[in-house]
Amino acid sequence: MNRIVQGGRIAAALACLLAGVAVPTGIFAQDLTSQYRAATARIIAEATSNSSAWTRLAEFTDMFPARLSGTTNLQHAIEWAAAQMKRDGLENVRVDKVMVPHWVRGAETAEIVEPFPGAIAMAALGGSVGTGPNGVQAEALVVKNYDDLEAQGARVKGKIVVYNVVYDTKIDPLVAYREGTQYRGAGASRAAKLGAVGALVRSVGPTAHRTPHTGGMRYADDAPQIPVAAISGEDADKLQRLQDRGTRTVIRMRMEAHTLPDAESGNVVGELRGREKPDEIVLIGGHIDSWDLASGAMDDGGGIVATWEAVRVLKKLNMVPRRTIRVVLFTNEENGTKGGQAYRDKYLDTLSKHVLVLESDNGMLPLKGWGFNGTDKARAIVTQIASMLGPLGGTTITDHYDGSDVQAASRAGNIPWISPEVDMRPYFVIHHTPADTIDKINPTDMARCVAAIASMAYVVADMPEPLERNPPAPTNQRRGGR
Amino acid sequence: MNRIVQGGRIAAALACLLAGVAVPTGIFAQDLTSQYRAATARIIAEATSNSSAWTRLAEFTDMFPARLSGTTNLQHAIEWAAAQMKRDGLENVRVDKVMVPHWVRGAETAEIVEPFPGAIAMAALGGSVGTGPNGVQAEALVVKNYDDLEAQGARVKGKIVVYNVVYDTKIDPLVAYREGTQYRGAGASRAAKLGAVGALVRSVGPTAHRTPHTGGMRYADDAPQIPVAAISGEDADKLQRLQDRGTRTVIRMRMEAHTLPDAESGNVVGELRGREKPDEIVLIGGHIDSWDLASGAMDDGGGIVATWEAVRVLKKLNMVPRRTIRVVLFTNEENGTKGGQAYRDKYLDTLSKHVLVLESDNGMLPLKGWGFNGTDKARAIVTQIASMLGPLGGTTITDHYDGSDVQAASRAGNIPWISPEVDMRPYFVIHHTPADTIDKINPTDMARCVAAIASMAYVVADMPEPLERNPPAPTNQRRGGR
Repeated sequence: MNRIVQGGRIAAALACLLAGVAVPTGIFAQDLTSQYRAATARIIAEATSNSSAWTRLAEFTDMFPARLSGTTNLQHAIEWAAAQMKRDGLENVRVDKVMVPHWVRGAETAEIVEPFPGAIAMAALGGSVGTGPNGVQAEALVVKNYDDLEAQGARVKGKIVVYNVVYDTKIDPLVAYREGTQYRGAGASRAAKLGAVGALVRSVGPTAHRTPHTGGMRYADDAPQIPVAAISGEDADKLQRLQDRGTRTVIRMRMEAHTLPDAESGNVVGELRGREKPDEIVLIGGHIDSWDLASGAMDDGGGIVATWEAVRVLKKLNMVPRRTIRVVLFTNEENGTKGGQAYRDKYLDTLSKHVLVLESDNGMLPLKGWGFNGTDKARAIVTQIASMLGPLGGTTITDHYDGSDVQAASRAGNIPWISPEVDMRPYFVIHHTPADTIDKINPTDMARCVAAIASMAYVVADMPEPLERNPPAPTNQRRGGR
Repeated sequence: MNRIVQGGRIAAALACLLAGVAVPTGIFAQDLTSQYRAATARIIAEATSNSSAWTRLAEFTDMFPARLSGTTNLQHAIEWAAAQMKRDGLENVRVDKVMVPHWVRGAETAEIVEPFPGAIAMAALGGSVGTGPNGVQAEALVVKNYDDLEAQGARVKGKIVVYNVVYDTKIDPLVAYREGTQYRGAGASRAAKLGAVGALVRSVGPTAHRTPHTGGMRYADDAPQIPVAAISGEDADKLQRLQDRGTRTVIRMRMEAHTLPDAESGNVVGELRGREKPDEIVLIGGHIDSWDLASGAMDDGGGIVATWEAVRVLKKLNMVPRRTIRVVLFTNEENGTKGGQAYRDKYLDTLSKHVLVLESDNGMLPLKGWGFNGTDKARAIVTQIASMLGPLGGTTITDHYDGSDVQAASRAGNIPWISPEVDMRPYFVIHHTPADTIDKINPTDMARCVAAIASMAYVVADMPEPLERNPPAPTNQRRGGR
C-alpha cells in the first residue's frame, strides 16, 4: 500500500482496507480501480519509456537461437537467464531440474523424383522417426482431411499420404491453428494404420514464402511409426494440382530424425518477494525453449523476456506488492511440456497459495486484451484491472486463455489462469519457422505487453483479497504445446 | 486491314491507307487509334475472358521447376514448349542451339560456430566456387558498402566479409535492386583483393521470411576466386548486431558449388507469319531458364507463357498481322545471357528487319504501362497504342525498359525496345528464391499482361509504316541478367 498512499489516494485506500473481507464484489471492484490507477499509470509510463525489453530479446535470441530441448543452446540460455535475473536483483533465483525429451532433426530433404523432378520444402515434425539412409520413396496420395483419408481405404497402403488441409486465414487464428494441428499431431498414425509408409502435412499457417512450419506430433500406440514432416503450402498446392491432373507423382523423403535419451534441462525461477504475504504467489512466465529451426523470438523468447522485464520494471519503481510475483521460464513447452508438469509436481503443496498463473505465449504483438479462465467473480476483478490498461491497446476479456506450461499447475491447484491476448494474425505466418526472428517484433508492441503484464501481476499480487479460486473440477480443455 | 474493315471502320482505314508514307506523325497517330481500337478491344476481350495463361504457367512450372542452365529440367522444358507451340499452330517452330554455362550448387550450409552457434540462411551465388569439403571458417567482418570495406584496409585479410547493404523498400524497386546487385555481382572480388577468404552478401530484396535470394556474380580477373553466397536479411541484421556489440563472431561456410563444361541448350522460336511482310519481325519473348532454387513462375515463366499466349490469342481470333510476330523463349538469361547473344549472332543479317523487340521479364503483376527505348517519333506511336489499353491498367510510357535477352539484338540492330511495366514491389520479395511459385501470380493480372502484349505486338506488326529505328549508336546502358 505504500505506493498508493504516496500517490495521495489515502482516502480511497483506507476505505478499501476498512471494507475488508466482507465487501461485496461490486463495491470492492470500484475501490480497486481508484486504488490502483496511479500505480498502473506509473508502471505503464516506465515500461513504455524505452525499448529495453526488445533490446534484451534481441541479445538473447542472437546468443541462443534454436533452443530445442536437449541442446547446448538451451542449456546456455537457461544459465544466462538465471545469471541475468540475479544481476537484475530478482530473489530466490534458481534452476529447477527437469528431464526433457531429446529429439534431433539431422539432415533432411524431400523431392519429387518422378515424373517431374523438383524439390519439396520440408521440415520433419518434432518426434518423428527418420527414414533410414535410403529414404522412403513412394507414390503421393493427397487427401483433404481424415474423412477423405478413410474414404481412400486400401489405396493408402504403400503411399506417402499428403494432408492438404488449408489454414483458414479468414477465421480466428487460434481456431484455424487448432484445426491444422489435428493433422500435424495425429496424421502420421492415422495414415500408418491404413498402411502408409510416410506422411507429409501441409504447414499449419498462412502460405507465405514456401517455408515449412515444424511442430510437435505424437505416435499412437497401435500404429507403425512412419516418418512425418511438414511441407510448405506451395508444395502442398502443387502436389494437389498434380494429382488433380491425374499425374502419378513419386516422392522421396530422407530424414535423419531420431530421439536420444532424455536430457537434463530446467525451469528458471526468480521472484519479487511479497512484502506482506510472500507465500502467496502470482506466477508469470513463458517458455524458454524453442524449435530447432527458429530463433524463437516470437515463440516464446518474447514471453519470457516480457514477464521477466515486468518484474524488473516493478523493482526499478520500487513497487513491492503484498504477495510474491514469481517469474518462471519453463522448459520444453514445444515438445513435451515437461517443464510445466515438473513445476506442478515440485510445487504441488503450494499450488493452493498460487492466486493466479499468467502465461505469455501468443507473441509480442498489438495487445487486444486478455484471455481468462476463472470464476465470474474473479473475472470481474480482472476486467476491472484491464480497464485501467486502455492506453496499451484493447481491454477485452475473452475465454481465449492460453498457456500450455501453466495448464498443469492450474488444473491441479484450481488456479485462475490468464494470458495477454494479441493480434495473432502475424504470429502464425512465422510460427515454428526460421523466420521467427527479432525483426518481426515491434519494440512498442513489446513494451506495451511488458506494461500490461506488470500491471496485471502487480495489482493481483497487491490487492487486499486474493482472486477467487477456480472450482475443483475445472473444465479447461486445452490443446497441447504450440 | 481485314480485321479493321470487317469492324466497319472503312472510312478511317482508307484515310490512313491513302495518307501513306508522307503523312505527318501527328495525323498518322490519330489514324492509328481509330484504326486499331476495335482490334485491341477484341484482343483484350479474348485474353481476359479466362485464365488459360495462368493455367498453362501452373502446369509448366509444376512440370519443370528449377530450370537452371545445364539441367535436365531446362532441356525438358524447352522440348515441351516447342512441342506445345506446334500444337498451338505456331509456324516455323524450332529450337536454336545455344551453349550455356553449367553451374551446379550442390549441398551448402553456413553457420555461426562461435561464440553463439546458430544457422545462417545462405544460398550460393550462381558462378561461385565452392569451399572444399572442410569449408571456409573465419571471423566475420560486416561492412555497409564498398567505402566501408576499403576503410577496413588490412583488417579484411583472412576474414569472411559480410556486405550488409539494405534493400531500400521506399524507392523504385528496380533502382533498389540495381544498388544491391553491385555487391552481389562484384563483392567477392572486391573483398578478395583485400585478402578476404569468403564473402556473404545480404539478399537483394525486402527482408521477408529469412530466405536468401540467389543471383549471378562474376569474378574479376585480377583477384583470387573466393566463395560467395547470399544470406537472408535477418541473418545480415543479426551479424551486424553482434558486431555492433563487439562480439567476435566466427562463421563457417560449406559450399559444393562448382562449374562444369558448357552444356547444350536452346532458344525456342515460334512464329505467327505476317500476311504481307513476313520478313519484317516483331519479336516478343521472355526467358525460359530460371534459378535452381525457384520454380521460376514470376521469373520468368510468366514472361514466356504470356508472350506465347499472346500469339495463341491472335491465332484464335484469326488476326494475322501484316508482319511476323516471332515468339522467342530465350535460354540462360540468369547466368550468362548466352541465349540473347546467340539470337543476335544467328539473326544478325535480319536484325535490320526487326521492327520492335518486346521482352516480358518484370513479372505477371498489375500493369502500369510500358518501358520504351526508342526515338521520339517511335515513342509517339507506342504512346498511342498504349492509350488504347487503358482497361488493362496504366498506360504510362517510361524510359524504364527491360529485357536482358533482347538487349544484344537491339543494340546490334538499332531496334526499338519495349517491355510491359508492372508494379514490381512484390517481385523482389520472392525474386530468385524458392518462393517464386505460381500462387504469387494473380490470374487476372496475368491475363491482362497477355492482352497488353498481344495488343502492342499486333498493332506494331500490322500498322502500315514500321516504327522508326533507333539511331546507330544507342546509349542504352543496361545491367546484366536479373
